[in-house]
Amino acid sequence: MKKVLVFGHQNPDTDAISSAISYAYLLNQIGVAAEPVALGESNAETNYALEHFHHTKLRVVNKASEETDTVALVDHNEFQQSISDIQEVTVYSVVDHHKVGNFETAAPLYYVAKPYGCTQSVIYGLYKEHGLAIPKDIAGLMLSGIISDTLLYSSPTCTDQDVAIAKELAKIADVNDEEYGHEMLRAGANVDDRTTESIVDGDAKSFTIAGKEIRVGQVNCVDVKDVLKRKEDVLKTMENFNQENHYDAFFLVITNILTNDSEGLLVGDDALAGFFEKAFNSTLSDHQMALPGIVSRKKQIIPPLTAAFEG
Amino acid sequence: MKKVLVFGHQNPDTDAISSAISYAYLLNQIGVAAEPVALGESNAETNYALEHFHHTKLRVVNKASEETDTVALVDHNEFQQSISDIQEVTVYSVVDHHKVGNFETAAPLYYVAKPYGCTQSVIYGLYKEHGLAIPKDIAGLMLSGIISDTLLYSSPTCTDQDVAIAKELAKIADVNDEEYGHEMLRAGANVDDRTTESIVDGDAKSFTIAGKEIRVGQVNCVDVKDVLKRKEDVLKTMENFNQENHYDAFFLVITNILTNDSEGLLVGDDALAGFFEKAFNSTLSDHQMALPGIVSRKKQIIPPLTAAFEG
Repeated sequence: MKKVLVFGHQNPDTDAISSAISYAYLLNQIGVAAEPVALGESNAETNYALEHFHHTKLRVVNKASEETDTVALVDHNEFQQSISDIQEVTVYSVVDHHKVGNFETAAPLYYVAKPYGCTQSVIYGLYKEHGLAIPKDIAGLMLSGIISDTLLYSSPTCTDQDVAIAKELAKIADVNDEEYGHEMLRAGANVDDRTTESIVDGDAKSFTIAGKEIRVGQVNCVDVKDVLKRKEDVLKTMENFNQENHYDAFFLVITNILTNDSEGLLVGDDALAGFFEKAFNSTLSDHQMALPGIVSRKKQIIPPLTAAFEG
Repeated sequence: MKKVLVFGHQNPDTDAISSAISYAYLLNQIGVAAEPVALGESNAETNYALEHFHHTKLRVVNKASEETDTVALVDHNEFQQSISDIQEVTVYSVVDHHKVGNFETAAPLYYVAKPYGCTQSVIYGLYKEHGLAIPKDIAGLMLSGIISDTLLYSSPTCTDQDVAIAKELAKIADVNDEEYGHEMLRAGANVDDRTTESIVDGDAKSFTIAGKEIRVGQVNCVDVKDVLKRKEDVLKTMENFNQENHYDAFFLVITNILTNDSEGLLVGDDALAGFFEKAFNSTLSDHQMALPGIVSRKKQIIPPLTAAFEG
């Protein structure tokens, strides 16, 4: 087996990037040659974390099979969220915290997933299992992943384990988790400098729900008006993505990280609008609906959408 | 969540039954109410192990949703090998050592798989992770699972980890692994007392390969003649199973546990015969082909069959 390429999902967020780093480091420590890479450019929040903990940006790759025969997936398992030629390489291992879907292998593999708020909390357990010490900067990046995925412990996806592990990591990294966390989230919530394409699709994932291809994006900000002041441009951009990629619908969730409320924007097949209204018990007006208290795509958006579409 | 029903695959072998027992015991120890059950009657080998280590036979269930909303799968993940109403319950966790296929959940879950020879070796790691002592009789049943799946360490699926863990378990169970192992395997290899249906389908699993429904059974014996003396009856029984269940082909692997060689019997769509000959570089004559050195369905039968069908 050649060097294992380790990567998170497309449109990488802080967990995807930092988990590739912490898991590749672990693999190298246990004698498995591995390199962390990314399936896209890191965002402003992730760049803040990388800089703070002295790590270079990851090399961006589009294909694996040109350089290796073996990969490790972190923070995802669904093939449509993975590298384009995933079917042409062997999956050595998966470390994840999502539901399992559209994942299949030809051979047995290492697969470890736990229903935690962040992949880093699962990786922390692997460090324990192998009796490995976590270097200071790696601990800081692992902490960054947890803060990002749980919105500093405020998301309903956050478990007691995530909090306990984050506190441990903060000690090793020698930072105050609350102070550092707020700084990091704010660094990622500045939307004024971002292109509309990045706001719309920068953190988007594709889901196949009841046979429909649904794209769900999410953008963090400190005031939803920062995004909605460009609403016309945002809707047009969502429409463009739909047409180019044949999505049946694009749903953008604009999350205020200070209030933990969101607004949803929907563009797509009009026949699907009712499913979105039913899922969130909310009403669309000019493509927009209120999503009070909703911050988690995994726990508060995909499950009710799936139920609405399938039920 | 109600009591978790823990079970291995249909047509349970010793690993499926004993892993349900050892994993349910672990769940109960960590505060998750669980009951080990089976998706079918245990075979003679498993009964030998259960008796030796003072455990009653498991309750056989056909449906989960009538009594619980939550299940845990051991020694399998593919839904067609699982309980009939798997889609109607929540999968709390999976502990396995097989490839991942046709497995999908609506929510994140615990999933731990390792490419070891036996599920019990993965469960052994979970006892370590939780710092739990393994009771003597549970250790004996875990050892039995490893001996069964690895044919006493002789199968190519057997890893160094399996052997090391089995030796540890033998110490805890206070048995000589080689002596006990031979006795247990011999108890399961007596085919004279078994019905032809049990020989043909008792350890069979279904696989969807290139769109074809392939049933692959395996029977252990100490002399392939013990089975082949009933060949006509065996072929007729395979044909009946094909017709009743719409299998495209039934492949029965008759394994001599003393020599670690097998003979294969094939009944089904004639157009598929060539794929089997190609997969094993062997020639069919009167539905039969030699499979020298082949003992592992997972490692030596399914992968070459998949390659032959898909290539």
